[in-house]
Amino acid sequence: MSEHDAGFRAALEEAKQGAGEGGIPIGACLVSKDGKIMGRGHNMRVQKKSATLHAEISTLENAGRLPASAYDGATMYTTLSPCDMCTGACILYKVARVVMGENNTFIGGESTLKQHGIEIVNLKNAECEALMKKFITEHPEDWWVIMRG
Amino acid sequence: MSEHDAGFRAALEEAKQGAGEGGIPIGACLVSKDGKIMGRGHNMRVQKKSATLHAEISTLENAGRLPASAYDGATMYTTLSPCDMCTGACILYKVARVVMGENNTFIGGESTLKQHGIEIVNLKNAECEALMKKFITEHPEDWWVIMRG
Repeated sequence: MSEHDAGFRAALEEAKQGAGEGGIPIGACLVSKDGKIMGRGHNMRVQKKSATLHAEISTLENAGRLPASAYDGATMYTTLSPCDMCTGACILYKVARVVMGENNTFIGGESTLKQHGIEIVNLKNAECEALMKKFITEHPEDWWVIMRG
Repeated sequence: MSEHDAGFRAALEEAKQGAGEGGIPIGACLVSKDGKIMGRGHNMRVQKKSATLHAEISTLENAGRLPASAYDGATMYTTLSPCDMCTGACILYKVARVVMGENNTFIGGESTLKQHGIEIVNLKNAECEALMKKFITEHPEDWWVIMRG
């Protein structure tokens, strides 16, 4: 996964930072087609009592308001399969690729991303999965309250 | 449209507030199944240089962090057809219905909403359309920069 090193490493660092804050340990990082980090962030649902600051939304927000062309060929790295909202955000900004750490804990809108021509890479990273499993075990109320079914 | 009065009126007020701030005039309002306003907001792309605070995202954020059950049967009112990100947010929170002011200015993820069993109502409201047309005419750089093609 050498080509993904910098973006994925930043996303994982963000997830760990979120864990250290007592938050849901999901991180993300947006990398431009020429390899520059445009923004990074982590889930702030617990920390800010936020309904919308998932890792990918935080990342897009931290990247700032940019012209559509800035997202051309960009890659969204995220430690977990993106939910429907974050899937929609990736479609809105037409990122070229979503690289996820894992999808064993949760599977989001992957089929929708594919339908929109967005490439998906699953790194099947054990550290991402372990972070989530630990959080869900220790704070089930902070995870399952947002899930259904 | 009597049953939509309170929610739609609040969304339209938000759109006008956004216009008064020099922003993109799109407003939204989330109403619970028992008719209470859970949150309202407007597009803050210009005002906060935000990439993610569209009207519906602002509304969900302003409603706060709630258990999934709070969104049961809820209606998202929005003055404009929701983009892919906001469509995804409505799917994530499983709102029952999206009531939009118009979709002549822009058509978002309506087919995706329908695929997920979310009811769509288009009020074809002339005031919503006039607000958008005025904004796009006067500030094309603030609208087209986020659009493609």
